Amino acid sequence: MERVAVISASMTQFGNREGQFILDLLAEAGEACLDDVGVSPDSVDHLYVSNMASGEFEGQTGIPNALAHDLSMLPAYTTRIDQTSSSGGAGVYAAWQSIASGASEMTLLVGGEKMTHRSTADTTDIIASITHPVEYKHGITLPTFAGLTARRYLHEYDAPRESLARVAVKNHANGVDNPHAQFRKEITLEDALEAPVIADPLRLYDFCPISDGSAALLFCPESVAREYTDEYSVVTGVGGATDTHVVHERSDPTTMRGVVESGNIAYEMAGRNPGDIDVAELHDMFSILEFLQSEDLGFFEKGEGWKAVEDGITHRDGDLPINTSGGLKSKGHPLGASGVAQAYEIHKQVTNDAGPRQVDADVGLTCNVGGFGNCVITTIMEGQA
Amino acid sequence: MERVAVISASMTQFGNREGQFILDLLAEAGEACLDDVGVSPDSVDHLYVSNMASGEFEGQTGIPNALAHDLSMLPAYTTRIDQTSSSGGAGVYAAWQSIASGASEMTLLVGGEKMTHRSTADTTDIIASITHPVEYKHGITLPTFAGLTARRYLHEYDAPRESLARVAVKNHANGVDNPHAQFRKEITLEDALEAPVIADPLRLYDFCPISDGSAALLFCPESVAREYTDEYSVVTGVGGATDTHVVHERSDPTTMRGVVESGNIAYEMAGRNPGDIDVAELHDMFSILEFLQSEDLGFFEKGEGWKAVEDGITHRDGDLPINTSGGLKSKGHPLGASGVAQAYEIHKQVTNDAGPRQVDADVGLTCNVGGFGNCVITTIMEGQA
Repeated sequence: MERVAVISASMTQFGNREGQFILDLLAEAGEACLDDVGVSPDSVDHLYVSNMASGEFEGQTGIPNALAHDLSMLPAYTTRIDQTSSSGGAGVYAAWQSIASGASEMTLLVGGEKMTHRSTADTTDIIASITHPVEYKHGITLPTFAGLTARRYLHEYDAPRESLARVAVKNHANGVDNPHAQFRKEITLEDALEAPVIADPLRLYDFCPISDGSAALLFCPESVAREYTDEYSVVTGVGGATDTHVVHERSDPTTMRGVVESGNIAYEMAGRNPGDIDVAELHDMFSILEFLQSEDLGFFEKGEGWKAVEDGITHRDGDLPINTSGGLKSKGHPLGASGVAQAYEIHKQVTNDAGPRQVDADVGLTCNVGGFGNCVITTIMEGQA
Repeated sequence: MERVAVISASMTQFGNREGQFILDLLAEAGEACLDDVGVSPDSVDHLYVSNMASGEFEGQTGIPNALAHDLSMLPAYTTRIDQTSSSGGAGVYAAWQSIASGASEMTLLVGGEKMTHRSTADTTDIIASITHPVEYKHGITLPTFAGLTARRYLHEYDAPRESLARVAVKNHANGVDNPHAQFRKEITLEDALEAPVIADPLRLYDFCPISDGSAALLFCPESVAREYTDEYSVVTGVGGATDTHVVHERSDPTTMRGVVESGNIAYEMAGRNPGDIDVAELHDMFSILEFLQSEDLGFFEKGEGWKAVEDGITHRDGDLPINTSGGLKSKGHPLGASGVAQAYEIHKQVTNDAGPRQVDADVGLTCNVGGFGNCVITTIMEGQA
């Protein structure tokens, strides 16, 4: 089967994009992605749009067609991919399938969300609409799941509260060097430990912000990638998997089955194992999730992920840098964009184009989580330069 | 490349499914589809859900995960495919890609929508959210586009108003023999011609109803299809294409470019031409659309589609039966379900399993239209028994 290359990656400024509409953000990222490699819009035959909720956030649906129109891409096929907060990863998987199946010779993936014009309460409620009605009606939202999971993890594995705070400190430090990040400021351990409580034991800096933004990737068969650029990456492995939709049915709340299973599929497809991964973007919507994913992907033993941040292993100068982009924590989390932006960062890292964030990496991994681990897409990308 | 087989098809009763939730409908169709060929849920590795707007209609998102959970299908990968009223066709295309790319060995596609619990005004508004804001704010909705297009068509091609009414009469007659259809009653030409005006010159029976319902298809590589059934079909061609998102920018309002282009892709992939098609399900959301599609797919010359229904060619006993299921007109149009239900009908026809609706057909075609032709997916399916 044809291997699938990523020949360009772009992202907009993440943050508060006041006065802009979802289509503006998507068009900005999509256009930049094509321009960077001089690909004309009419060369694109498939356009995937990763977006969770433009209907709920802005009362506008049908955005893939509108975007194809705005990017002068007609009559390219287009559709929307929604897998809640893992819509971006699901878009990567859809784009991979479009090329690998031979259906497409050039696929543009654009992920994005416009959220900050709505109140925090509205946004929390729109996101909570993904949870099972059984849990939702008891007042459960995703942040409360995170608090409960964090408490269990700290108890189960004798992890110090400070270890969670160190994830936030690390990812904020990384974000300083990311010009697209929503927050570009370092925080101290004290800042994180003394911030207002949101869902005990988690405090303000354990949570990603609400964000606007978009990111894009351009895919083609590897056999033609060098016609466009010598600096491409290849998606060597990609897998998706689900866990129970009712979170309280999980036998071990500190293990994310979707991460384990999607990781296994991606490792097998790529012929890689956890030790081969040089850099990873994990879905740190909540600080605790970085530990869970780093364990469930096999980077560290179960219950020992917290030690890695304490020991500096996951820092930018450590053996396995995690979230060099700043992660969702400081980069921001425009739902449909996040999985695409994770792949943006790994593409930049493995093609040696990450500027001040550059680490030594040939093989990178992204883990994009939907719901509270309800669906997960794991991707392995390798540089070819 | 591996050819993609459909080994089972199911659909629920379409109509007013009061008291049921979108997940009930999806689970009903999904379960029946597996049961019909004795496939266990844990054999399914990919689950696609075609649905336009469960968030807007019911305040519930994340339904693919919930469905995977309810169908005992964990850890199968799942995602939602939204291409407005062509979400079902887009789901067929996604499922085809999942098998053709080698990503999946067994994909279940379930399309559905729950709409009737909302007022007609709410529903019209939710659907109108797919239009371009430029048009929407002038009060344009999809029915008004249909009225304008019908008037132009009648003028341009000297077609009689009665020809549109005959589409409704034909499709109502076909629906009588479809146990899943929302309406199972014949109407007369007079009924259609004298019904209340909705968007002049179109009247009540020129429009499909608002509906609840779900439909499902089960896909696998053709190489293993006979392990499950001898009565399978193969998706030999599938293509998707877009037209302008702003409808008033189209140079000829009586031609649907998305239909032309998606048809060309599907014909080329299947090695077929319009004359090879024995039966077709076209997207008759509005009666006028059946004419446009039958011309843009090459069945008839431009401006002559109306003669085919007058001459009986598209009737069930004609040379090219169109909408043997009753079409969206009498079967109903639960948005995300419709494209899947079109493929259900063609699968039944080409596997000689359509009961009283059976026509002589080896090769069938579906055309599923999103927006007002903004995006179209055309599929060719062939029986193998």
